Amino acid sequence: MIEPEYVLGLDIGGTKLAAGVCKRDGTLVSSARVPTLSHLGPDAVIDRIVELCHRVMTESKIPDIPFVGVGCVGPLDVKRGVVQNPPNLPGWIDIPLRERLEKALQKPIFVDNDANAAALGEHRFGAGRGIANLVYLTLSTGVGGGLIVNHELWEGANGNAGEIGHSTVAFDGRLCRCGSHGCLEAYVSGTHIASRARERIASGAPSQLPEMAGGLENISAATVLSGVQAKDAVAMEIWNETLLILAAGLANVVNIFNPEQIILGGGVIHARDLLFTPLRQLVAARALPPLMQVVQIVPAELGDNAGVLGAAAVGWCRWKREKRKAQEPV
Amino acid sequence: MIEPEYVLGLDIGGTKLAAGVCKRDGTLVSSARVPTLSHLGPDAVIDRIVELCHRVMTESKIPDIPFVGVGCVGPLDVKRGVVQNPPNLPGWIDIPLRERLEKALQKPIFVDNDANAAALGEHRFGAGRGIANLVYLTLSTGVGGGLIVNHELWEGANGNAGEIGHSTVAFDGRLCRCGSHGCLEAYVSGTHIASRARERIASGAPSQLPEMAGGLENISAATVLSGVQAKDAVAMEIWNETLLILAAGLANVVNIFNPEQIILGGGVIHARDLLFTPLRQLVAARALPPLMQVVQIVPAELGDNAGVLGAAAVGWCRWKREKRKAQEPV
Repeated sequence: MIEPEYVLGLDIGGTKLAAGVCKRDGTLVSSARVPTLSHLGPDAVIDRIVELCHRVMTESKIPDIPFVGVGCVGPLDVKRGVVQNPPNLPGWIDIPLRERLEKALQKPIFVDNDANAAALGEHRFGAGRGIANLVYLTLSTGVGGGLIVNHELWEGANGNAGEIGHSTVAFDGRLCRCGSHGCLEAYVSGTHIASRARERIASGAPSQLPEMAGGLENISAATVLSGVQAKDAVAMEIWNETLLILAAGLANVVNIFNPEQIILGGGVIHARDLLFTPLRQLVAARALPPLMQVVQIVPAELGDNAGVLGAAAVGWCRWKREKRKAQEPV
Repeated sequence: MIEPEYVLGLDIGGTKLAAGVCKRDGTLVSSARVPTLSHLGPDAVIDRIVELCHRVMTESKIPDIPFVGVGCVGPLDVKRGVVQNPPNLPGWIDIPLRERLEKALQKPIFVDNDANAAALGEHRFGAGRGIANLVYLTLSTGVGGGLIVNHELWEGANGNAGEIGHSTVAFDGRLCRCGSHGCLEAYVSGTHIASRARERIASGAPSQLPEMAGGLENISAATVLSGVQAKDAVAMEIWNETLLILAAGLANVVNIFNPEQIILGGGVIHARDLLFTPLRQLVAARALPPLMQVVQIVPAELGDNAGVLGAAAVGWCRWKREKRKAQEPV
C-alpha cells in the first residue's frame, strides 16, 4: 500500500485556521494561516476554511491532492466528522464538518480532534519518530491527549480515547469544566495555572504578580512563569504545585499504559527547564520503577507547524486504515 | 495457526497453588489445588508446584500437553519469567521461575502476572468474551489490572502495563506500599478498606464494627460490608468514600482508554449490589458522556477457576504471539 505523496493538512482552532500542502516526509510545499473570526459563526468560518484550502492547494502547484486531513478543536464525533459544540467555536452545534468540506472541496476528508492530530504529527514527523508506544499531552488553554499504540493512534471504543486532561488526580478537588472534580486539566492547563494564582492572591497572599501583569485579572500562566524567575512566593508555590500534580497525572499514564515516551506540547512547555528537569524527578518518585526505567519525557518538536503537520498525519493514518479495511476479507 | 487443544494452567498465589488441564473451550479436564506454604521458601514451593502439575496432567489422561501457562503474583520480569520479590512470596528474590519450570516439566512455560492472567481469562472464557477492548481490575488484598486492546493483552513497553491500582486519585493522599501517595489501591483494596475503617474508629468514631469482628484489629473489608448492611455509621462512611474513589479510578481508565467494558474481580465484588449499582452512577458523574455511553461495568464471571483459566489463557496467548513472531519476515 503506497501512500499518496502529498496531502492537505487543515488545522481548525478557536483563534486561527491553518492549512498546508504536506509532502510525505513532512516538508510543507505551501502553507498559510488566517484568523478564525469565530464570532462570525459556522457558515462564515467554513467559507473561510474552504477559501484557505483552495489558496494553499493553488500555491502548492501540486495538481491532484487526493484527500484532506483535519485536526479540529473538540468535542467531535470522530466517526461521523461532526463538531459537537466546542467551547472555542461558539455556535458549532452538531455541525457536519466532514460532509460540508467533502461537498465544497470534492475530496475525502478525514477529521480528528486537535490533540490526536498533534499526537500523530509528533509520532510521524517530530519527537516520537520511530517510537511504537507513546502518550502525547498538550498543556494549553485546556489539556488534551492522544495515545499511540503499536505505531497507530489508539481511538478506543468510539474514537474518544486519550482524554488524559480529564483524569482525576484529586477525587475531591477543583471543579472542572467537564463537570467532574479534580481533573488534571483543572490544575495544570494554562487557564487554571493562572486562575489558581489569582485565587491565591485574592485570598490575601502577597505577590508581585498583579503588578507584573498590569492587574490581578491579567495574570496568565506566562506571568506565573515570569514570577517564578523573579522568585515571587505565590508564583513559586503555584508552579511547584503544578509540577507535583502534573507528575501525578503523568505517573498515571506511565503506570496504566507503560509507554516508551511521553511528549508534552502546548504553550506551557515554553517553561522548558523549569518544567522538564523537576518533572522527570517528580514522576520518577510516583511511577513504579520498572515502568519508569523505559519512559522518556520530552518536549514536542513541531512548534508552529504542529497543527498542519498533525492534520496531514491524520489524513495519511485514516486513509491507510480505510484501505486496510477495504482489503480485509468480509 | 491452529491452537493446541489442551494446555496446563498454573496459578501461583501467596496462599494457594492451583493447576488444571484446560481444553480450548474452557472446560477443565482435571484440576487441583494445594496450599502454597510460602514460609517453606522458593525451592520447596517450586517442588510442590512441579508435583501438582504432574498430578493434574496424569489425572487428565491427555498424553501430550504442549506447554504451560502461568499466572503468578508479581512483580515479575515478564519477558524473562523471573519473580522479583513479591510481598506475598517471601524470599522469592529474582527467582527464574520460567527456567526452573521448563527444566522440571520439559515444556515451554509462559509466565505473566496474576492480574494480566485474570484479564486474559475473563476475555477468553468469562465476562469479556468477544469484547475487543476492555479493562480488568481486581479488588483484593491489592488492586491489580490488565488491559485488552484489540483482543490482545496490552503489555506496554516492557510488559508492565495495567497497574491501575497505582494510578493516583489523590495527589497528596494516603501513602501506598509502592512508595507513592494517593494510589487507588491505598483506598479501595480490601486491605485499605479495612485499615481506613480501623483508623476512623481508633480516632474516636463510634461503631459496632469492633464488636462484629471480635476486636478492632480483626476488622476486614467483609466486616465493613456487614456493617453497611447493619447501617453502622463508620462502615457506611468508609464504603461511600470507597465507592467515590473507585469511581474516580474507573473514570480515569474510561477517559484515557475509552474501553467497551470494565470487569471487576477479586473478593470485594462479593458486595454485589452494594458495589455495582452506586458505582455505575458515580462513574457516570465523572467520566465524559460520549465515553460513558459505550462502557459496561460488570463483575468477573470465572469465580474460583479464574486463576487456572487465566493461566491457561496466558499460555495460548503467548504461544500465538511467539508463532506469529516466528512467521514474520526478518
